[in-house]
Amino acid sequence: MATIGVLTGGGDCPGLNAVIRAVVRTGIKYGYDTLGIRDGWAGLVEGNVEPLTDYSVTGILPKGGTILGTSRTNPFKKDADLQRLKDNIRKFGIDAIVAIGGEDTLGVASKLSGMGIPVVGVPKTIDNDVSGTDYTFGFDTAVAIVTEAIDRLHTTAESHHRIMVVEVMGRHAGWIATMSGIAGGADEILIPEVPFDLDEVCKHLRARYESGKLFSIVVVAEGAKPSGGEGVITQSEKTDAFGHARLGGVGNYLREELEERLGMETRVTVLGHVQRGGSPTAHDRVLATRFGVKAVELIREKNYGKMAALCGDAIVAVPIEEAVATLKTVDMDLYDLSKIFFGG
Amino acid sequence: MATIGVLTGGGDCPGLNAVIRAVVRTGIKYGYDTLGIRDGWAGLVEGNVEPLTDYSVTGILPKGGTILGTSRTNPFKKDADLQRLKDNIRKFGIDAIVAIGGEDTLGVASKLSGMGIPVVGVPKTIDNDVSGTDYTFGFDTAVAIVTEAIDRLHTTAESHHRIMVVEVMGRHAGWIATMSGIAGGADEILIPEVPFDLDEVCKHLRARYESGKLFSIVVVAEGAKPSGGEGVITQSEKTDAFGHARLGGVGNYLREELEERLGMETRVTVLGHVQRGGSPTAHDRVLATRFGVKAVELIREKNYGKMAALCGDAIVAVPIEEAVATLKTVDMDLYDLSKIFFGG
Amino acid sequence: MATIGVLTGGGDCPGLNAVIRAVVRTGIKYGYDTLGIRDGWAGLVEGNVEPLTDYSVTGILPKGGTILGTSRTNPFKKDADLQRLKDNIRKFGIDAIVAIGGEDTLGVASKLSGMGIPVVGVPKTIDNDVSGTDYTFGFDTAVAIVTEAIDRLHTTAESHHRIMVVEVMGRHAGWIATMSGIAGGADEILIPEVPFDLDEVCKHLRARYESGKLFSIVVVAEGAKPSGGEGVITQSEKTDAFGHARLGGVGNYLREELEERLGMETRVTVLGHVQRGGSPTAHDRVLATRFGVKAVELIREKNYGKMAALCGDAIVAVPIEEAVATLKTVDMDLYDLSKIFFGG
Amino acid sequence: MATIGVLTGGGDCPGLNAVIRAVVRTGIKYGYDTLGIRDGWAGLVEGNVEPLTDYSVTGILPKGGTILGTSRTNPFKKDADLQRLKDNIRKFGIDAIVAIGGEDTLGVASKLSGMGIPVVGVPKTIDNDVSGTDYTFGFDTAVAIVTEAIDRLHTTAESHHRIMVVEVMGRHAGWIATMSGIAGGADEILIPEVPFDLDEVCKHLRARYESGKLFSIVVVAEGAKPSGGEGVITQSEKTDAFGHARLGGVGNYLREELEERLGMETRVTVLGHVQRGGSPTAHDRVLATRFGVKAVELIREKNYGKMAALCGDAIVAVPIEEAVATLKTVDMDLYDLSKIFFGG
Repeated sequence: MATIGVLTGGGDCPGLNAVIRAVVRTGIKYGYDTLGIRDGWAGLVEGNVEPLTDYSVTGILPKGGTILGTSRTNPFKKDADLQRLKDNIRKFGIDAIVAIGGEDTLGVASKLSGMGIPVVGVPKTIDNDVSGTDYTFGFDTAVAIVTEAIDRLHTTAESHHRIMVVEVMGRHAGWIATMSGIAGGADEILIPEVPFDLDEVCKHLRARYESGKLFSIVVVAEGAKPSGGEGVITQSEKTDAFGHARLGGVGNYLREELEERLGMETRVTVLGHVQRGGSPTAHDRVLATRFGVKAVELIREKNYGKMAALCGDAIVAVPIEEAVATLKTVDMDLYDLSKIFFGG
Repeated sequence: MATIGVLTGGGDCPGLNAVIRAVVRTGIKYGYDTLGIRDGWAGLVEGNVEPLTDYSVTGILPKGGTILGTSRTNPFKKDADLQRLKDNIRKFGIDAIVAIGGEDTLGVASKLSGMGIPVVGVPKTIDNDVSGTDYTFGFDTAVAIVTEAIDRLHTTAESHHRIMVVEVMGRHAGWIATMSGIAGGADEILIPEVPFDLDEVCKHLRARYESGKLFSIVVVAEGAKPSGGEGVITQSEKTDAFGHARLGGVGNYLREELEERLGMETRVTVLGHVQRGGSPTAHDRVLATRFGVKAVELIREKNYGKMAALCGDAIVAVPIEEAVATLKTVDMDLYDLSKIFFGG
Repeated sequence: MATIGVLTGGGDCPGLNAVIRAVVRTGIKYGYDTLGIRDGWAGLVEGNVEPLTDYSVTGILPKGGTILGTSRTNPFKKDADLQRLKDNIRKFGIDAIVAIGGEDTLGVASKLSGMGIPVVGVPKTIDNDVSGTDYTFGFDTAVAIVTEAIDRLHTTAESHHRIMVVEVMGRHAGWIATMSGIAGGADEILIPEVPFDLDEVCKHLRARYESGKLFSIVVVAEGAKPSGGEGVITQSEKTDAFGHARLGGVGNYLREELEERLGMETRVTVLGHVQRGGSPTAHDRVLATRFGVKAVELIREKNYGKMAALCGDAIVAVPIEEAVATLKTVDMDLYDLSKIFFGG
Repeated sequence: MATIGVLTGGGDCPGLNAVIRAVVRTGIKYGYDTLGIRDGWAGLVEGNVEPLTDYSVTGILPKGGTILGTSRTNPFKKDADLQRLKDNIRKFGIDAIVAIGGEDTLGVASKLSGMGIPVVGVPKTIDNDVSGTDYTFGFDTAVAIVTEAIDRLHTTAESHHRIMVVEVMGRHAGWIATMSGIAGGADEILIPEVPFDLDEVCKHLRARYESGKLFSIVVVAEGAKPSGGEGVITQSEKTDAFGHARLGGVGNYLREELEERLGMETRVTVLGHVQRGGSPTAHDRVLATRFGVKAVELIREKNYGKMAALCGDAIVAVPIEEAVATLKTVDMDLYDLSKIFFGG
């Protein structure tokens, strides 16, 4: 009986538990035991593992977060860590690893695979910015949460003739902003891929107001920046004690600038981690489940170094390197489409 | 200035208003006027139209149903109707028609196109059974609604050691049952494509009970039938005064059979039209919006006789005939995947 | 250190876990141990108990169902059972019991209390028909679920000019129908307290149609009956193998009658157990938590034979007998208020 | 035929449309015409009114915001305004006014009533801080939205061992924080009524961490302040160009202080106006409807100077002055109850 080790790394994301469940259940079907590795690669370095049975994964499908915990530990930072990781693979009799994670976690997976360790990947990013797959699970849930918030803001914006700024996740890619902006009927969408010209934004919102539409919704990705204005959003560029950028920078910046320049009451909402918590949408549960099944099938076929990916309607195998090579930024056709609805 | 006529036909579906809004707004961008045709093809036969402006479509993006109304009228049934339809196209100066609908509505569109009338299509079906497109809008919303219901039934089933039967939409194809069954963690999924063997179902649910899992969730599409048992589900096969099949047939049948054969309390939920009402998911709003934009682009390109379709990540044009030629039944790989989780 | 035993009996209900958690946590604060008794009174007869710690109740607040399981066992049916129950109270050193349940469970609690056993009660009914308390937890959740369904049905009813019948819980009292009917803007609400006259209902729906409102929503409690027509709803009066009435009776009856008499397409939705499953509303979580805290306070005060109850804004103690003496039917002022909106 | 004028003033709130609809429909029943007054008292000063018919209020029950618009205009600030207001009451033949609003709007209503103008009130505040009524509509919706956000934050906090700070509405009273904190299982709730001691908060969160609970949820009302530390939260005390306090002050303050003092990753979510937008809960729709009906009944009885209020289960009449005399702060018994669950 062969043994699969499964781990989750990086930021959490709705659907992680659905993948874990699918790995365990598909493993049972094909005769594998599954070991849960706690807190990402850290658990493999420290030998922190536990058997996952049918019982362990009962009821976790609709749950957010990850029953395995997560971390950003990179075993390649210290030689000793890498050695302990290899020792633990042997010690626990792990025949293949399913690594569920984003750029960093899959980067480690890719390197380990290059060293001959049997690894398969499952891509994970709330931001949808991993290459090699059409979509990742968790993204649909984040878009749904933001869209519901925009729906709510519409009624209050309309009653009060206000501008509402919604700052959403997306440091390097504006997928959440673009999709939820289209779904929520935003009047302006600002993303990291396209530095914004504040004069243009104001001109546009003013035109909308003058046409009789007395309120506006502006969706801004946390990583969006004004063109040429590097010094401006100092607040969002400060990092906290853990080296992470602070939320609320660009949102608060826009709120102040728009209020002052346009003379319209402006309010800001910073949804923060609400976007990545809670029960996954049905769509994400199905995608995550299919990814988990595929991961085990890849192991069965000894098709290592690959990750499960969505291509159109089908789940396919692509080299893990593909996912980590480049950031998948927003499709400009889609972003342009969103502009048809601006100011409308 | 050219004029687009837009209509919605057949059963309603979350996302119809998003398509209409996208047609009007994209029309404005490209310099078209838009006429709303009321109640499907009936409105064109009767000359029941109204101008749609930017103002008409403000606020309709998140709304279920269709502001244009809908019907199942087929203008090819009477020669006089067809003539009136043609006359009205001329009378109102309609240069091209956007027909949003399923098999029937698109069937008419295809025939009209064959006669030289400039028509483009947008596929619509809650059941996801239209060919030529990976997915249709409304389907994700229906799956989300059913999945939420299954989530709720899980807690009560578990507390009471019961079997819960959920009858969902799907007369000819089991897409909603399959997707929501996977997303909700169903223990049995029964679809029209695969006649079920009640002995097998019972054997399976009994095995689950004996393994210590004292409750089960059974998702059944309204069109599912027992193998060889044509005479059994008489109730669901009766049609009402309008020629439509009655809901609740197979669900009630299963409830009675399972309770009697297994000696376990069994309850049935018939969600009915709740599945096709209300605000579309963010996913469906984006898809519907993209379809609407594409429809106007097809008109701009005078690419008539085509419909907007989703192919992977892209919106493409396919011949309307393709959509109406065959019913798209459930992918058997996906259905087989669902079985990995049965009884687990 | 004194020991509290806690049990849940009867049908499940959103908020049961919130009560259990509150009992355990408040117990910890005041120095009590808590024993969970499984499956209602059955667990006390059979000695099926387990210690509940802070850890046992972590994360259960938002969960539907009951972690303790439930049953309808009545220990007064057999003398031997009652003796075993008493023996187990002594054996496990239970100093006081918190009985969470409806009429039956509290009826047992009341009798035990009369025999000198220290019991306090927490009223529970999805139907809100227990006397002695303004509201019970679970009811707000059920009303929320039904109202969301009615919202969805509105859009589809409107698009298709249909009558939509929604059958909801309420065998003896129409609280869910009345509240959700008012909240959802129903055009007719039928409850067990007021036998309905089908001619009147039809007259009224026809008037609405003739005034230009081409669709209607009818909410009917499962226990509603036509005046004078005892023989009519045979289906709903049949009971299943477990002695429970079958769902769908009156809903299907109305669907057929309305369609035939009015000549309007009519559809029925039978929400069934969806109404009593899943995560409780914030409102119900707070109410259930306050009830659980109060139950432990009653024990501290040795104020046995009482149950926690909501009176206005305050949680008070009322004799358990009060709750089981009479069924709390719908306030007729509230029902009359709902009629202001019929046909509107 | 007598004429009722209805207006909404102050911040918007889910349920306003439900009140308006109830006023119009109840008016129709009793033979009143209704005039909608736009943008609060401003509309009466400027003569900006429109007839509201059955048709005007169709479909508005589930909608957030107010179809009448709102403002904070106070006609007592200028004598000329007051005169114009009186003139317009005569000009439009308004026999009685229904004023729906909070402290300011009802304050004007009370003064007008004192001058002999026939006014009745409906209390409105998202914050639940109006006296004279047990609860106000909109509050339950706000609590539901915050609780859902806390539920989502729980899963991500747990996966990452983080502290999550949620800043919610409540400048002068902490009702939303207290109720949603109890419903969401918060580990700390900070409200304006009780200045917080940051050392105590840290001590408590550290104890929780050391007991093995590696994450915490802190709910803070925007008006909460540290004891003795008036100078600290400068950011939240700055006001914007419209004289309104800025959001995010205390939330960001806590985030920085907790991260630094405890050495734990801390994240903040500022829900902002999401809390007051969107469709009201079923609970709020019923309450708002009952208030609207009561307002018209008060007019029928010529019981002017009164407002509709909830007392226990009943809708009663109380003098408008009562509502505006004092702020209703959080019941300290309820706040103390929430502490039972801190750190648990």
